[in-house]
Amino acid sequence: MAWHSAYSQRVLAPDYRFAVENLRHHFVDAMTAHLDEVLRLPGHGDASLAAGRELRVTLVRLHDEPAPPYVEDVPDLYFAMQRALEAKHGDAVGLIRLGLSRNDLDMTVYKMHGRTLLSRLGAALIELRGLLLDKADAHLGTVLIAHTHHRPGQPTTVAHYLGAAQDLLARDTERLLQAYDRANLCPLGAAALAGTSHPLDRLRTAAALGFDGPVENTYDAVASADWEFDLAMVGQSVALNLGRVVDDLLTWASQDLFALPDGLVQGSSIMPQKRNPVALEHVRTRLSRAIGSAAMVTFSSHNIPFTDLNDFGPDIQGGLVAQHKQLMGALALMSACVSGGDFDTARLAEVARQTDTTATELADVLVREAGLDFPRAHRVVATLLRALQAAGRPLAEATPDDLAAAGGPPLASDALQGAVDPRAFVERRAGFGMPAAKSMAENLRRARSRVGSDAEALGARVGSVERAIAALRGVGYAGVPAGA
Amino acid sequence: MAWHSAYSQRVLAPDYRFAVENLRHHFVDAMTAHLDEVLRLPGHGDASLAAGRELRVTLVRLHDEPAPPYVEDVPDLYFAMQRALEAKHGDAVGLIRLGLSRNDLDMTVYKMHGRTLLSRLGAALIELRGLLLDKADAHLGTVLIAHTHHRPGQPTTVAHYLGAAQDLLARDTERLLQAYDRANLCPLGAAALAGTSHPLDRLRTAAALGFDGPVENTYDAVASADWEFDLAMVGQSVALNLGRVVDDLLTWASQDLFALPDGLVQGSSIMPQKRNPVALEHVRTRLSRAIGSAAMVTFSSHNIPFTDLNDFGPDIQGGLVAQHKQLMGALALMSACVSGGDFDTARLAEVARQTDTTATELADVLVREAGLDFPRAHRVVATLLRALQAAGRPLAEATPDDLAAAGGPPLASDALQGAVDPRAFVERRAGFGMPAAKSMAENLRRARSRVGSDAEALGARVGSVERAIAALRGVGYAGVPAGA
Amino acid sequence: MAWHSAYSQRVLAPDYRFAVENLRHHFVDAMTAHLDEVLRLPGHGDASLAAGRELRVTLVRLHDEPAPPYVEDVPDLYFAMQRALEAKHGDAVGLIRLGLSRNDLDMTVYKMHGRTLLSRLGAALIELRGLLLDKADAHLGTVLIAHTHHRPGQPTTVAHYLGAAQDLLARDTERLLQAYDRANLCPLGAAALAGTSHPLDRLRTAAALGFDGPVENTYDAVASADWEFDLAMVGQSVALNLGRVVDDLLTWASQDLFALPDGLVQGSSIMPQKRNPVALEHVRTRLSRAIGSAAMVTFSSHNIPFTDLNDFGPDIQGGLVAQHKQLMGALALMSACVSGGDFDTARLAEVARQTDTTATELADVLVREAGLDFPRAHRVVATLLRALQAAGRPLAEATPDDLAAAGGPPLASDALQGAVDPRAFVERRAGFGMPAAKSMAENLRRARSRVGSDAEALGARVGSVERAIAALRGVGYAGVPAGA
Amino acid sequence: MAWHSAYSQRVLAPDYRFAVENLRHHFVDAMTAHLDEVLRLPGHGDASLAAGRELRVTLVRLHDEPAPPYVEDVPDLYFAMQRALEAKHGDAVGLIRLGLSRNDLDMTVYKMHGRTLLSRLGAALIELRGLLLDKADAHLGTVLIAHTHHRPGQPTTVAHYLGAAQDLLARDTERLLQAYDRANLCPLGAAALAGTSHPLDRLRTAAALGFDGPVENTYDAVASADWEFDLAMVGQSVALNLGRVVDDLLTWASQDLFALPDGLVQGSSIMPQKRNPVALEHVRTRLSRAIGSAAMVTFSSHNIPFTDLNDFGPDIQGGLVAQHKQLMGALALMSACVSGGDFDTARLAEVARQTDTTATELADVLVREAGLDFPRAHRVVATLLRALQAAGRPLAEATPDDLAAAGGPPLASDALQGAVDPRAFVERRAGFGMPAAKSMAENLRRARSRVGSDAEALGARVGSVERAIAALRGVGYAGVPAGA
Repeated sequence: MAWHSAYSQRVLAPDYRFAVENLRHHFVDAMTAHLDEVLRLPGHGDASLAAGRELRVTLVRLHDEPAPPYVEDVPDLYFAMQRALEAKHGDAVGLIRLGLSRNDLDMTVYKMHGRTLLSRLGAALIELRGLLLDKADAHLGTVLIAHTHHRPGQPTTVAHYLGAAQDLLARDTERLLQAYDRANLCPLGAAALAGTSHPLDRLRTAAALGFDGPVENTYDAVASADWEFDLAMVGQSVALNLGRVVDDLLTWASQDLFALPDGLVQGSSIMPQKRNPVALEHVRTRLSRAIGSAAMVTFSSHNIPFTDLNDFGPDIQGGLVAQHKQLMGALALMSACVSGGDFDTARLAEVARQTDTTATELADVLVREAGLDFPRAHRVVATLLRALQAAGRPLAEATPDDLAAAGGPPLASDALQGAVDPRAFVERRAGFGMPAAKSMAENLRRARSRVGSDAEALGARVGSVERAIAALRGVGYAGVPAGA
Repeated sequence: MAWHSAYSQRVLAPDYRFAVENLRHHFVDAMTAHLDEVLRLPGHGDASLAAGRELRVTLVRLHDEPAPPYVEDVPDLYFAMQRALEAKHGDAVGLIRLGLSRNDLDMTVYKMHGRTLLSRLGAALIELRGLLLDKADAHLGTVLIAHTHHRPGQPTTVAHYLGAAQDLLARDTERLLQAYDRANLCPLGAAALAGTSHPLDRLRTAAALGFDGPVENTYDAVASADWEFDLAMVGQSVALNLGRVVDDLLTWASQDLFALPDGLVQGSSIMPQKRNPVALEHVRTRLSRAIGSAAMVTFSSHNIPFTDLNDFGPDIQGGLVAQHKQLMGALALMSACVSGGDFDTARLAEVARQTDTTATELADVLVREAGLDFPRAHRVVATLLRALQAAGRPLAEATPDDLAAAGGPPLASDALQGAVDPRAFVERRAGFGMPAAKSMAENLRRARSRVGSDAEALGARVGSVERAIAALRGVGYAGVPAGA
Repeated sequence: MAWHSAYSQRVLAPDYRFAVENLRHHFVDAMTAHLDEVLRLPGHGDASLAAGRELRVTLVRLHDEPAPPYVEDVPDLYFAMQRALEAKHGDAVGLIRLGLSRNDLDMTVYKMHGRTLLSRLGAALIELRGLLLDKADAHLGTVLIAHTHHRPGQPTTVAHYLGAAQDLLARDTERLLQAYDRANLCPLGAAALAGTSHPLDRLRTAAALGFDGPVENTYDAVASADWEFDLAMVGQSVALNLGRVVDDLLTWASQDLFALPDGLVQGSSIMPQKRNPVALEHVRTRLSRAIGSAAMVTFSSHNIPFTDLNDFGPDIQGGLVAQHKQLMGALALMSACVSGGDFDTARLAEVARQTDTTATELADVLVREAGLDFPRAHRVVATLLRALQAAGRPLAEATPDDLAAAGGPPLASDALQGAVDPRAFVERRAGFGMPAAKSMAENLRRARSRVGSDAEALGARVGSVERAIAALRGVGYAGVPAGA
Repeated sequence: MAWHSAYSQRVLAPDYRFAVENLRHHFVDAMTAHLDEVLRLPGHGDASLAAGRELRVTLVRLHDEPAPPYVEDVPDLYFAMQRALEAKHGDAVGLIRLGLSRNDLDMTVYKMHGRTLLSRLGAALIELRGLLLDKADAHLGTVLIAHTHHRPGQPTTVAHYLGAAQDLLARDTERLLQAYDRANLCPLGAAALAGTSHPLDRLRTAAALGFDGPVENTYDAVASADWEFDLAMVGQSVALNLGRVVDDLLTWASQDLFALPDGLVQGSSIMPQKRNPVALEHVRTRLSRAIGSAAMVTFSSHNIPFTDLNDFGPDIQGGLVAQHKQLMGALALMSACVSGGDFDTARLAEVARQTDTTATELADVLVREAGLDFPRAHRVVATLLRALQAAGRPLAEATPDDLAAAGGPPLASDALQGAVDPRAFVERRAGFGMPAAKSMAENLRRARSRVGSDAEALGARVGSVERAIAALRGVGYAGVPAGA
C-alpha cells in the first residue's frame, strides 16, 4: 500500500529513526521472550519446534546486525524486522505473532526503554549527590550568610546548605525508585487488550525480560500510561529542586562568592572584563526545558480515551526522550560546576562580618544569660542595631558599652563577642540537623550512607535486568549491553 | 506601622481569611507542642513554669473560640493570636517565641494542612475505587466492544474495563501514600533555618504533632517545597487518569450505551429532546482545572532561591487548596455517576453483534484447530470479512460455507459459531488478568482486598495523627477534630 | 426535579454564587437587548407588545434588586430570574425565550464579562506604565551597572532600564487591545448553534450591547473559545514580562540598591535586623499563579469537541477570574513598589566606580582616537584590566602610564578619564534609543505619548460599551455601572 | 582555552549543529548589513575601505560554502566564521566587530529565524483554510446533526461546521500576523545593551535586513523575549483550536461518518477488520506536543532577570523549533485528511432522520403559525417526543394526529413535515451566518476572500524580506533563498 506522503514523511520516517535509535534491541528481546513462550505451548510438531528454534537464533543475531533502512512500503521497524525474518524463515515467522499484538509488544518495549532512561537518570542523580557531599565535607566550617526573603538572614555553613541540597535530591532518588518499581511490570500477554485464548504464561515472559511481574489486568496493561507521567513527574521534580540551587549559585557567582573554572565560563566579544557563568545558565535552561517536556507528556495524556492509542506510543516517547536529554545535560553540567567550581571562603567571611545577622543569637543570649524576657531582648537588640548602623559599624564589633547604651544588661566582653561572632553562632547550633561542624559531620555521614544504599538499590534493579537479558540472549552473547 | 493599602488589601486580608479557614487549629497545635518543649528546658524558675502552664491552657482553648477578626495593624493570624494571648498573659507569651521562628512554625503548619488534604483526597479515591468494583461485579458478563485507535477493537467486558480503571486509581493511591510519608516529617526546631542554641528536642515535638520524625537538615526543613510538588503531582496524576475514563463514559453516554440518572443530567431551554450528561462534563472541567492548579504550584516553585520564601507559604497554599477543591468536586461527581449511572446491556450486546470484532479469535481458531499458519489464517479471515461486509452481514452470522468460500478449511458449524460469538470470545480469555468471568472475579477479589488494605494504611496514618493531637490537646478536649 | 446532592453542592451552588457576583447584570442586559429585537418582529398583537413592554420595565429593574437566593430546585441564576419574571408577567416571559438559547445567551454574557476584565487589566497596566515613566524621568542621569549573564556588563541608566520595562508593558497593552477587538463580537442570534428561523437582526442586538458586530458564523459563535485563550495568554504575557523586572528589583533590594518604603516590607519574628521586600515577593507569587491560571484555561480547552460545552461556560470562567485577581493584585502591588520605592543613587554610583564595566568604551576610544584595530584594542584593554585587578585598583582610576604599560598608545589623561568614567560612557551613547540623557528624554516623551494614546484607545472602547448599555437601560437609569 | 567536556558536549556541540541548520545564513546577512554600516562611518582610510569591501565579498560567499565543521576550541558558529574570515583578511575582520555585540547580533539572527518560522506556519495555515473551504463548498447541503454537551443537538450542515472551523483558523492567522509585526523590529545597533558611541544608523541596518524598523530602546532590544512567547502562543492557539476539530473528526471516523483514504489509515497485526484513522491520531499528538513545547518557552522565560541571557538565545530556540516541527507536521497531516478524507452523506442523512433534533423548530412553528406561546409549544413538543420514543418512531415521521394527541393544535401534514424535516430545518435558518445553503454560500465567499487577503498580507511580508535580502546579497546572487 502507498502511504500518503504527509504520513510517510511526518510520521513513519521519523518514528522509524526513533525506533532504530531507542527501541530496536528491546523489540528483539521482547520478541525472543514471547517466541520462547510460544514454543512451550502444547501441540507443536517437531518441524514447527525446529523451525522455531532456528528462527530464535536469527532473531538474537539481529542485535548485532545493522538495522534495516527505512523503506516507504513498510510501516515501521517491527514490520521491517519481520520482513527480514520472513525472507529467511518463511511462514515460521508466524510463530512470533501467535497471541501477540502490537499493543502489548509496543507497550512492553516502551517500558523497557523507560526503565533504561530512569536508570541513567538515577545514576546521574546519585553521582551529583556524591559530589555535593564531597564539597560539603570541604566546607564544614565555611560560614555562609543565608538569605531569607532575599535579605541576609542568618549565618550557617556551606556544608549545611549543600547538605540540604543533597537531601532534596535524595528524595528525588526515592521518587525515581518508586516510579521504577511501579513501572517495571510487564504488559506482554495482554495481546490487543483482552489477552489471548492460547495458554501463554505471563509470569514467565515477564521474568524473562527482567520485569518484577506482569501488569495484572490485561486492559490496564495496554491502555494505561500513568507510568509515563510518573517518569515525566520525577524529571520535573528534579528540575524544580535543582533549579532552586542553580538560582543561588548564579547569585553567588554574580557576587564573586562562588567561581567556576575556566572551562565553564565564557567571555564577551565586546566586554573584555567578563567571565560569565554560562554553564550554570545552561543548567537553568535545560531544567526549564525539562519541565516543558513534562508538559508534552501531560498534554499528550489529557482528555483522551482510556484504551490503546498512538498518543502513548511513538508520540509520547519523543517527549520522554526530550526530557531525558535535557536532564542528563543539566546534571552533567551541574556535576561539573559542583566539582570544578568553588566557594571563596575569604569573601564569604568578609560578607559574614558585615551583615549583622547574628542579632538572633544576641537576643537569645540576653534571654539565657541575662534573664531578659524575649520581647525585651528583641527590643534591646533592635535598638543596638540601629545605633551601630547609624555609626556605620557592624554588629560584630559591638562593645559592652554599646549594649548598655541600647538599654541592655551588662555583658562581659568575650560573652558579647561570642554572641555576635558568626562562627560562634554556627557552633552553638549543634542540635539534630544543625550547622555546627560536629553535628553536620554526622549528618553528612548519614547522607553519604544513604547515597550508598540508593546506589545499591538502583544497581540491584539494573543488575536484575542485565542478568535476565543476558540469560535471554544466551550463553556467549557479547554484543550490545542490556540497557541499550 | 501602617501597611500600604495595596499590601493590606491584596495580601494581608486575603491571607488572613485563608489562615482562619484552613490553618488556625494547626497553628494552635504547633504552638502548643513547641511550648511544651520550651517548658522542658532547664533553668525555668517556678514562676516561669507556672506562667507557661497557664498560657498553655489559654492556648488550647483558642481552638473553641472564634478567630480574632482581621484588623489593619496586625500582619497575620499568628500575630493576632499572639496579641490575644499577650493581653491575658503578658510577657509569658515570649515563651512561645523562644527558639521558634515563623519559618519553621509556618512550614510545620502548612505540612499539617497538606497531610489533611492528602487524607481527604485519599478517602475519596478509595471510596470511588469501591464503587467501581461494585459496578464491575455487576457486569462480569456484560460484553463491551473495546475501541482501540478510535475504532471497534475486541470484545471484552464492562468488568474488565472498570477493573482496569480501578487499577489506575489504586496506583494513584500508592502515589498518595508515598507522598504522604515523604511529607510527614516535622520542620519544627529549625527556627529561621540554622536551628537554635536552646536544647529543644526535635524528635519529641515531631511526635507530639503526629509526624513520623523531624526533617533532618534544618535548612532543608524550612527551604524545601518538594512535598508541595508531590501533592500537586498526585492530584495531577489522579486528574489525568480519571479524565481518560470520563472521556469514555461521555462517548458511551452520547451513544446511549451508558446513562446517568435524572439528578445528574440537564435538559435544554431550546431543544426539548435533550438529556445532557452534564455531571460528567463537570467532572472533566474540574479535572482540567486541577491540572491547571498544579501548574500554579509548579510555576510558584520555579527559578527561585532555595531558602525560606513567601512563595511556598501563604501563596502556594492557595494553589494547593484550589486543586483540592476541584479534585474533591470531581471525585464526588464521579462517584455519583458511577454508582447512579449504568450501562445498557441490551444495546451493548446489539453493538457487539454488529461489529465484527471477533476476527482475531477466528484466526486463532483456524491456527489451533485447523492447523493453518498464522499469516494464512489472517488472510482467510480478512477475505471472509470483506465478503460479509459486501453482503451487509455481520461476522457473527458467518456459516461454514462462507468460510470455505473465503478459502478457509472446513469447520463445524458450532465450532465456527463459538469462534465468532463475542461472549465465547470473552470466555476463552481466561488467563491471568483476562476478561473471562471466572478470571475477572478473582481479579476483582484481589482488587477489593487492595482497596481494603489501602483503606487501612490511610486509616492508620489518620489515626496516628488524631491520637497525637488528642493527647496534645489534653484529656477531655472535645472540640474541633484533629484534621480540621 | 431533584438534583443529586453532589451536583447541587459541587456544581450548581458555586456556579450560582459565581453568576451573582460576576454575571448577573450582563444577563439582564443581554435579555433586554434580545427582548427589544423580539418585539420588533412582525406579527405581534397589541396585547403581546404591551405585555412585552411591561416585561422590559421589570427586567431593567432587576439591576437594582438583590439577586434571588439560590434554591435547590432551580438550576441557575438565569432560571431563577425567569421564575421571578414569570411570577409577575406569566407567559409573556416566553417572549424572551423566542429564538434564544442558553448557548448564545451564555456566551454573550461571558464575553461581556471578559471584556470587562480586559478593560480593568488594561487600565491597571496603563497606570503602571505611567508610574514607570515617572520614575524613569527622575533617574535620567542615574548610572546603573546593567548585568548580562548574571555578571556586571555595562553602565547604563535607571531611566534606560525602566523605559525598556515600560516598552514591554506597552506591547502587552497592544496585545490586550488586539484581544479585546477580536473578542468583542456578539454571539447573540446563534441560538443553539444553527441560528433561528425568526428574522431577528443580529447586527442590531450586537450594537445594542456595545459589541463591534456579530460573530459571523453562528456555529462559531457558540462553539469557539479562542477568545478565552486570548485573555489568558495576554495575562500570561504580562506575568512573564513583569516577572523579569520583579526578579531584578528583588536582586537590587537584596543589595540595598533599591529600597521599599515601610508599608511594603516586613520584619522577622526572630531576626531583628530584617526588612524583607515582601511586597515584591508577593508580586512574584501572584504572577506565577496567574500563569498557572492560564494553564487552567488551556487544559479546559484541550482535546474536547468543537461545539457548545460546559467547559467554556461556568467552568472556565473561574479560571479567568482567578487569573484576573492574581494579576490585579500583582499590578496594584507593583505600582505601589514603583511609586513608593526608590533607587539609592549613591550606592549605585559607588558600584559603578568599582565594576570595570567601561572596558568596551576604552577599546572603542583606542580604535577611534588612537587608530588601533579592534582586536588589538581589545587585547590592550584586557591586559590593562588584569594588571589593575592584580593591584586592587578599579579601571576608573587608570592612568596613561598604566595604559602604556599594557602595551597601549599614549592617551591624554582627560581623554583616558573620559573613556573610563561610567557617566561619560553613558553620555557618549546618544543614538536612537540609547541611554544618554538627551536621547532617553526624547524616548521617554514618545513613550509617554504612547501611554496617552493607549489610554485613549482603551477609553474609547470602555466608553462605547458604557454608552450602549446606558441607552439600553434607558433614560434616567442610574444604578449599577455598565461594566459591573 | 579548553572547554570542560560537559560544556563542550552538552552545550557547544549541539548548539553548533543547531546554528548550522537554522541560523547560519541569517548570521551572514546580519554581519553583512552591519559591515555596510561600519563602512559608511567617517574616518576610514582608503586601505580600510578597500579591505572592508573585499571582506564583504568573502562574507556574502559564505552563503554558498559549506559551514565549517565544529572544532573543540571554537565556542560557536559565529567564531568559526570569524576565524575563517580572519585567515583570509586578517585584522580587517575587526571592522565587523566595531560597535557590534553578540547580544544584538544574536537577537537579530533569532528574530530573522523566528519570522521565517512564522511565515512558514502562516502559509500552512492559509493552505488548510483553503482546503476546509473547498470541502465546505462541496457540502453546502449535507445535513449534519451537531452535538452539544455530547448529545445530538440540532441539524446543521457540514459546510456550516467547516466554515466555523475555518473562522477559528482565520483568527489564528490574524494572531500570527500581529505577532509577526510586533516581532519584526531590529535589535541591531543595541550592542551589548547600551548602544555604541559610533554613529551607526540603526534605521538603515534595520531596513537592509527587511525589518520594519529598529527596536527603539536598546536595552529592550537585547533583553526582551516577549516576541518569543508571542510565537509560542500563536502556535498554542492553533493547536488548541485545531485539536477540537480533530476531536470531532475522530468521533465521526469512529462512527463511519467520516472516512480517511487508504494512505492515512493503518490496520492491525491482530485484528483483521481494523482501519484505524491514525493520521488524525497523529495530528492530535503533534498538537499536544506543540502545546508542551510552548511550555518550554514559558518556563524558559519565567522568573529570570530582565537582561541578555542565554535562556533566550540558543536554548529557547530549540523549544521554538520543536514546536514548529510539531505544528508543521500536524498541519500537513490535517491538510491531507481534509482534502483526502470525506463525509459519508448517506449515513449522515440516516443519522439525521433518527435523532429527533428538529424539536426546536417544531416548537417555533407552533408559536409562529399556530399562535401558541413558547412555554406551551415547548411542552407540547416534549409530550409528542415522549410518545413517539415510546412507540420507537422518529420525530421525522410524526403525523398531525400524533400532534393532536400530544395536546397540540391542528397542523397541515405538509406544514408538519416541513417543521420536522432536518433539511427544511436547515433551509429555514437563512439569517446572517446561518446554515441555509444560500446564506452559507455567501459566508463561504466572504471567508474565501479573507483567505485571499491574508495570503496577500503574508506574501507582502515575505516579499519585503526577500527583496531586502536579495539587495543585501547583491546583484547576481543566486544561492540559498532569503528565508533559509
